[in-house]
Amino acid sequence: MGQRKKILTPGIPGEAASSKNLMNRRSLLRGALLSAGVAATGAAMPQGSDSIGASAPEWMKTPGQTFLPYGMPSKWQEKVQRIYTIAPGRAGTGSSRTPLHLLEGTITPNGLHFERIHNGVPAIDPSQHELMIHGMVKRPLAFSVESLMRYPMETHIHFVECSGNSGGYSQAQPQQITAGEMNGLVSCSEWTGVRLATLLGESGVASEAKWVVAEGADAAAMSRSIPLAKCLDDAMVALYQNGEAIRPEQGYPMRLLLPGFEGNMNVKWLRRLNVTDAPVDARDETSHYTELMPNGKARQFMFPQQVKSVITKPSLGMSMRGPGLYEISGLAWSGQGRVSKVEVSVDGGKSWMPAALGEPVLSKALTRFRVPWKWDGTPAILVSRATDATGDVQPTRADWVAQYTPNQNYHFNAIQSWSVDAEGTVKNVYV
Amino acid sequence: MGQRKKILTPGIPGEAASSKNLMNRRSLLRGALLSAGVAATGAAMPQGSDSIGASAPEWMKTPGQTFLPYGMPSKWQEKVQRIYTIAPGRAGTGSSRTPLHLLEGTITPNGLHFERIHNGVPAIDPSQHELMIHGMVKRPLAFSVESLMRYPMETHIHFVECSGNSGGYSQAQPQQITAGEMNGLVSCSEWTGVRLATLLGESGVASEAKWVVAEGADAAAMSRSIPLAKCLDDAMVALYQNGEAIRPEQGYPMRLLLPGFEGNMNVKWLRRLNVTDAPVDARDETSHYTELMPNGKARQFMFPQQVKSVITKPSLGMSMRGPGLYEISGLAWSGQGRVSKVEVSVDGGKSWMPAALGEPVLSKALTRFRVPWKWDGTPAILVSRATDATGDVQPTRADWVAQYTPNQNYHFNAIQSWSVDAEGTVKNVYV
Repeated sequence: MGQRKKILTPGIPGEAASSKNLMNRRSLLRGALLSAGVAATGAAMPQGSDSIGASAPEWMKTPGQTFLPYGMPSKWQEKVQRIYTIAPGRAGTGSSRTPLHLLEGTITPNGLHFERIHNGVPAIDPSQHELMIHGMVKRPLAFSVESLMRYPMETHIHFVECSGNSGGYSQAQPQQITAGEMNGLVSCSEWTGVRLATLLGESGVASEAKWVVAEGADAAAMSRSIPLAKCLDDAMVALYQNGEAIRPEQGYPMRLLLPGFEGNMNVKWLRRLNVTDAPVDARDETSHYTELMPNGKARQFMFPQQVKSVITKPSLGMSMRGPGLYEISGLAWSGQGRVSKVEVSVDGGKSWMPAALGEPVLSKALTRFRVPWKWDGTPAILVSRATDATGDVQPTRADWVAQYTPNQNYHFNAIQSWSVDAEGTVKNVYV
Repeated sequence: MGQRKKILTPGIPGEAASSKNLMNRRSLLRGALLSAGVAATGAAMPQGSDSIGASAPEWMKTPGQTFLPYGMPSKWQEKVQRIYTIAPGRAGTGSSRTPLHLLEGTITPNGLHFERIHNGVPAIDPSQHELMIHGMVKRPLAFSVESLMRYPMETHIHFVECSGNSGGYSQAQPQQITAGEMNGLVSCSEWTGVRLATLLGESGVASEAKWVVAEGADAAAMSRSIPLAKCLDDAMVALYQNGEAIRPEQGYPMRLLLPGFEGNMNVKWLRRLNVTDAPVDARDETSHYTELMPNGKARQFMFPQQVKSVITKPSLGMSMRGPGLYEISGLAWSGQGRVSKVEVSVDGGKSWMPAALGEPVLSKALTRFRVPWKWDGTPAILVSRATDATGDVQPTRADWVAQYTPNQNYHFNAIQSWSVDAEGTVKNVYV
């Protein structure tokens, strides 16, 4: 084994494939396509070589590191970080993004969940924190973290998406930035907490009540008005994220989780729920997160994030290494329920192939889609198009843009595309 | 709001509940039980108080922290760490455990996944790492990380459990240690990688082959023999864990994942797959992980982890704070498929109530079970009993122990119990 071996890469299968060389998953699993590629690039490897012989790597020759009380990623992954878009001198407000193009699967590791802060991340002592429920209720109440821990809990996997996510697509020219830079204001976690309906039930909501104003314990006292119906539906006061206590930047010790609703409403560091009969016209529901239309009017209270998808592999920043087998993979989601279908095109939308959806497909959660692709080395335009359980389909970018004034960049959910040129370079394009 | 408010804790409902005050979830969601408790402990809270008034907490008065490229838990969570059981002077071998009693939901955050190492954690440069497939194959092959990235991937949530987990239960006296100290050699992640069947298909397995010997690139060259049938079933070469690259202590840059099989076989830092017609009798399948019976013979190759459950809340180390509503919650799993049922008893197994199972219930994954409990302040013995999709039920500890020589401590899966005394102190007991 002293000699450097060739490395196997998937080759071009001999048999004809379906639409534009997008491959049916079933035929792939039969093995016919992959093994056909081996002859071209197959590696020679001596048999029976000893595992700790002369060619054994350095790290097999000396004992490795010992235990860590709380583990961290490999040092070779140090570039896998959140992406910053902070205005200089304004460290207390802004956002960071999840590097979607460097991740796989559907769960976002807690260290890489996107951040959106309005006056910094408060360092809250959980023993001093209370959640108050007041306003139009029979019994104004306060809950400590400890008392909430005794209530029945639920666990659900849901995405949270900032409604400003992918706003760069409202620009007239396609931005040459990565999938994470463009779309990384969405993350997905397993959340555990107490159903908000349970806590509102404790307080006894007045029959005339229609809204709940949620306020955070950050130095912006970030507030949003939420329809009472949502609070009594699937809303949760979340205490845990992917198994452990919620991270500071996601609201430690507790946040509001409104599955599918725009991220800003999922108030972090949740401190107050004021039950009312009308919205309060908070800053973030008037000057922000509204949709300005060409007639000068703005749509307000557009709560559920609409059906959406993004191809993360291949995407800008990755180079294709010659013709052969690749996987086209990405994420799809909808704030209205499950994703029912994702179609992929490699010819800019002329022809489509359904992608495989990773199971289980969960409501209001990121869904991973995949389709094998035999790239023949000629230019291609990769497009994904998702449909959700309500039947809604992603619009074209032209149709989406036409609804609004120029540069209106909230709630973008149109179809996105990447071009691949003959050299294998990937770029953002509008189709 | 200047005055300190009382904090609401769930009280004792007025209406009669079912079996030993274990409560039917449906009645709980109707709200009748919870709100009945409020009168006893309800909090007075002034209405309409200003959010940033005199009583606002310190962290609302000054801007908070700014962004972190890779986030970490709150400083108030610093005791939530992996639990060590390293023999002094033997830092290169041993294990650390997931603090199950401090976590919630089903996903284990990557930083807290249990560790089992045999000669330390190797620091592997992924650009220098290869996976070799050789032995009884048509084409011996080597795969780089980069080449594997082009293959079709799959994403699945599965637990990994060391077969020495919960071995402390083989002791004659119940150990007074936490649920995590006792049972924390199990963790659950979303894994993404390439199906092993795909890679074996590339090499072309000889028709006489029956086993695959997997070897790790650690300084122990940890090896195990795996039935070929498992390798062609749901086995995966995993590259990602909860969305990001696998952590060093879980096998960076790649590990073998054999859903449901004992942890030791899920070879980390996977370097070689030697296709053979017989097992190699590696150290960890002869001197370890076998089951010594009273007749002096040992069972070998007991691969799937059997159906099991553990109550994490309440559990040792937590004190009940007086009579009232609590949630009994824990984890159940089986290496044979889905958990079909978890029953909970508060009278040491005389009567049982089915617990609610967190959806979706996934095959070979941790399942969270929950049941509300109205504790009346008298001594109780909490027990959980899981059944899996094959119909297997957890045995009693007495039945489990009777199969083996004393202190045989692999593959423990019997029923576990906690006692609660009148003061609310929780202890480990055998029933």
